[in-house]
Amino acid sequence: MADYRAPLTDMRFVREEVFRAEQEWQAMSATADFNAELADAVLEEAARLVEAELFPLNQRGDQEGCVMSDGAVTTPGGFRQAFAELARGGWCGLGGNPAHGGQGLPKLLTQSFDELLYASNTGFALYLTLNNGAGLLLDAYADEAVKTRYLPRLYAGEWLGTMCLTEPHCGTDLGLIKTRAVPSDDGRYSVTGSKIWITGGEHDLTDNIVHLVLAKLPDAPPGAKGISLFLVPKRRVLEDGSLGEANGVVCGGLEHKMGINGSATCVMHFEGAEGVLIGEPHQGLAAMFTMMNYERLSIGIQGLGLGDVAYQSAIAFARERRQSRAPGGAAEPDQAADPILVHPDVRRMALNARAWNEGGRLFAACVARELDRAKYHSDREVREAADELVALLTPVAKAFLTDRGFATTVEAQQIYGGSGYCVEWGAEQYVRDARIAMIYEGTNGIQAMDLIGRKLTRNQGAYVERLADRIRTELENDDIDAPDVHPFREALERELIRLERVTAAVIDAASKDAAAAGAAANDYLHLLGYAVYSWLWWKAAGAAQRGLTRQGPSGEDFYRAKLIVGQHFLTRQLPHSEALERQIAAGPSGLMALERDWF
Amino acid sequence: MADYRAPLTDMRFVREEVFRAEQEWQAMSATADFNAELADAVLEEAARLVEAELFPLNQRGDQEGCVMSDGAVTTPGGFRQAFAELARGGWCGLGGNPAHGGQGLPKLLTQSFDELLYASNTGFALYLTLNNGAGLLLDAYADEAVKTRYLPRLYAGEWLGTMCLTEPHCGTDLGLIKTRAVPSDDGRYSVTGSKIWITGGEHDLTDNIVHLVLAKLPDAPPGAKGISLFLVPKRRVLEDGSLGEANGVVCGGLEHKMGINGSATCVMHFEGAEGVLIGEPHQGLAAMFTMMNYERLSIGIQGLGLGDVAYQSAIAFARERRQSRAPGGAAEPDQAADPILVHPDVRRMALNARAWNEGGRLFAACVARELDRAKYHSDREVREAADELVALLTPVAKAFLTDRGFATTVEAQQIYGGSGYCVEWGAEQYVRDARIAMIYEGTNGIQAMDLIGRKLTRNQGAYVERLADRIRTELENDDIDAPDVHPFREALERELIRLERVTAAVIDAASKDAAAAGAAANDYLHLLGYAVYSWLWWKAAGAAQRGLTRQGPSGEDFYRAKLIVGQHFLTRQLPHSEALERQIAAGPSGLMALERDWF
Repeated sequence: MADYRAPLTDMRFVREEVFRAEQEWQAMSATADFNAELADAVLEEAARLVEAELFPLNQRGDQEGCVMSDGAVTTPGGFRQAFAELARGGWCGLGGNPAHGGQGLPKLLTQSFDELLYASNTGFALYLTLNNGAGLLLDAYADEAVKTRYLPRLYAGEWLGTMCLTEPHCGTDLGLIKTRAVPSDDGRYSVTGSKIWITGGEHDLTDNIVHLVLAKLPDAPPGAKGISLFLVPKRRVLEDGSLGEANGVVCGGLEHKMGINGSATCVMHFEGAEGVLIGEPHQGLAAMFTMMNYERLSIGIQGLGLGDVAYQSAIAFARERRQSRAPGGAAEPDQAADPILVHPDVRRMALNARAWNEGGRLFAACVARELDRAKYHSDREVREAADELVALLTPVAKAFLTDRGFATTVEAQQIYGGSGYCVEWGAEQYVRDARIAMIYEGTNGIQAMDLIGRKLTRNQGAYVERLADRIRTELENDDIDAPDVHPFREALERELIRLERVTAAVIDAASKDAAAAGAAANDYLHLLGYAVYSWLWWKAAGAAQRGLTRQGPSGEDFYRAKLIVGQHFLTRQLPHSEALERQIAAGPSGLMALERDWF
Repeated sequence: MADYRAPLTDMRFVREEVFRAEQEWQAMSATADFNAELADAVLEEAARLVEAELFPLNQRGDQEGCVMSDGAVTTPGGFRQAFAELARGGWCGLGGNPAHGGQGLPKLLTQSFDELLYASNTGFALYLTLNNGAGLLLDAYADEAVKTRYLPRLYAGEWLGTMCLTEPHCGTDLGLIKTRAVPSDDGRYSVTGSKIWITGGEHDLTDNIVHLVLAKLPDAPPGAKGISLFLVPKRRVLEDGSLGEANGVVCGGLEHKMGINGSATCVMHFEGAEGVLIGEPHQGLAAMFTMMNYERLSIGIQGLGLGDVAYQSAIAFARERRQSRAPGGAAEPDQAADPILVHPDVRRMALNARAWNEGGRLFAACVARELDRAKYHSDREVREAADELVALLTPVAKAFLTDRGFATTVEAQQIYGGSGYCVEWGAEQYVRDARIAMIYEGTNGIQAMDLIGRKLTRNQGAYVERLADRIRTELENDDIDAPDVHPFREALERELIRLERVTAAVIDAASKDAAAAGAAANDYLHLLGYAVYSWLWWKAAGAAQRGLTRQGPSGEDFYRAKLIVGQHFLTRQLPHSEALERQIAAGPSGLMALERDWF
């Protein structure tokens, strides 16, 4: 099985040469302490950790899985020790609020750590992902007493957090939940109900688990407007912060899944469990949405990380495996056959994977930078503009990154031939682990509905228009006039026009037919994804060209490779956007024409 | 878990109303005994068998898998009994030569049985697939004594056949094989070497296993021209046909795979095993290619079958699962939410799956009919034309059907949301089982190289040209002038022009650059796939229109649904062909530009 190497050079290129992180950080007081050297140091240490500790546990985690016995869940061998090391190193509180013991790193930096975690061991990474989400939520909505009691422990990895949303009969449609919370005399609540698909609902990594649970109060209005949010610890937390007796929280079983076997996916029963209300009554869903942007980007990055480890693994195989000869004649005549990396079709698959990964890395960084601006920038207008762009791009980041990430793991597996189907080589695990990312944290179909509803038709396309304006301003202000960058500029200009044309058409169609938005949603999300990648690849090509001209830090080979990979995106991936435009133009009538009985 | 229902109505429509099977059969003496009623009877009995016996064992087969102990392999629970029932019913010799106990059914009929087998239980189906291949090969190349001794047992399912090609260091590049065959004094051979990925190499379904093994004779010329083919039984077969002692054939282990766990994938060691030469010395690869067209179509049908069972399963889920409301307002106001089948995006996924399945069923029947013509038709010109079309379309059938079949299982799984990722619902097994079909029997990349090499550039596009001529003749002779069929005609005419344009460009590029064929191969294969589907959907739309006008046997709802599903292909799948044309136009330079060290 091939090793995994953290792609630090490409991460640095994206961060510093494309998105100028250092300048960005210096301009905001909350991040003014960060600079390129510090970022490098953090990621180099992270790379050491994931390469040496987490990746070697990845296959074992898949094969052993989590095991439940007498209500207790044991994680795969090595997970406890690795988690303890991460916790000791402060890696659970990387993005946490410094006022409560977090390290306050900007998202533009922590998103790279997310990628390393997912790439090296997705099953393991998820315990941290959920904990990050819980921390964000409490930081935004809990009162000071709760924050003081819980946040330092979550940031220290002493306890871990979960999100308890889904119930057996509802996931997407949370208005249907049945879990109830009844007020007690002491201001607390008694929470009763069953939740499913709870990542890290029970495990042996920490002494306590902090569940954030959606439930309805007795006086709740019906539907999604009657949902409240409660903190329900596995073990009660006493006034002095020490652990009391067990709360009424029981793990009812583990799901048997296609992948991410190292992650405990639990059925959780709350049986009159003591809980604390977080935020206002009936406002639980709004609170949950606060951290959605972070979580959804994180799940998008799962697709990216798995795409990259799958690519690396396939390339290692393609260098070793020898079959047939290069098209122009033997590349290594002294051997019985050439490495398969000489074959154009193998290169096509490898470059597809690579281009999606590098595009995905640009995209994740782009959204992360806007998240930082929205949170930290001193200028309200900048914050609001960033917030808007995050709102627009988050569903795309989640769905496009995971759709492309899954496809990338499949393409990487294909490079392996038959070995890709055999468990020992590891390629098939990446496919299975990537598949869930298209489903959870809101299916990709739900992301598309979010995009086309809240982010597009509701504002009559204003978000898209302002994004297009911003890109056009960048195009106008750009001073690079190099032949290698021209095709990127032309493609971007063409895709912007296409995006605006399709956006107008979709908004018009949606105003006339209730089914039009849903019929266009998925393809529109992908169309926007292609347009944004065109933007980011143009930026990356420009940065590579600057690097070539000025002998930049990433090295000449790196910049040349970047331009070739970008060109691959333009010629062999971007043509799909035209097909998407045509598909959207088909409208809803065909989809709705088939009688329900005829399916 | 949802049931599987054999799609007999659609199979009959394709067979009788699109391809006029009865007329076809009556016109050839070898198939003159077959008619529509007999075909219906065969498939109805087959449907009963797969629905009641094989499908209920599918999930169990996945979960139990095959187990090896002391060199013996045990198939999953129920497989032995089910296989015995199939063998008793004569289902192992369906397409076999009647002169040796086979039933001589035309491929146009048996391909439907293949679909039912794969859909209901792919892990199980593969034992029969390999046996069919072995039977075909022996019938074509073995001498009468061998045929008489072996074929009746293989057709009766008393013994089962295998194909032993791949070795640890070579699969695609069979010229590299190391297995050796040394002549003995008695005219037999002593075969020594190791083979991997041998489907059904060892199992408990039959008393004997008949291996067809590629090996090199001592005087073999190097490379692919020095490969011979040997029959090597697990147990020796005595003169009177009874079983003698064990031959030197040992199962060295089972692969742990992503899926098809019910199928024993074996490492096989031949240790001076007694073998019989089949066909001429050094002509083994040519013999193997004889049955490739059948096997490759069969593996294509694996994609189709799994796509259909995945679709059926997802639709059953989408009828039951209730989340949110239909776009125009509640479809079932008395319920808390509507079934998710009301949502346009769910319908988009469902119709994608359905359109690929129905298109795939047309395609499989199309190739099967040509296989029958090539084998049975009395007119040499018809036979040769059919042979040529089979040669052209076989790599497309294998690769396009499996690529689309896999994508269909993924899309069906997506309809399930989180349940699709949980083992108990079965959707994820279809994905895992479908994935291998893109890899084995020649990876889809190898299919594309076969297409663009032997079937395109070698004849300067003559095969494609003659296919286009044939389609144009059909277009000219067509008498249907209905508005619902016009879009199909227009799309077909457009795709034919595109196909011819791209074909000419690819041939020209390949004549100038050794890497051009490989760079275009995969996309060209898909482009040809889209063109052929345009043809077949036009035929199907015409047949549906005829059915509507003349109150045909499939019923009005069926014909209306067929036109809607075909329209979905035109508007939401076919637009991709233009992207493929652009991707092909990119040529090889970008793929070859990246230095090997830069990957």
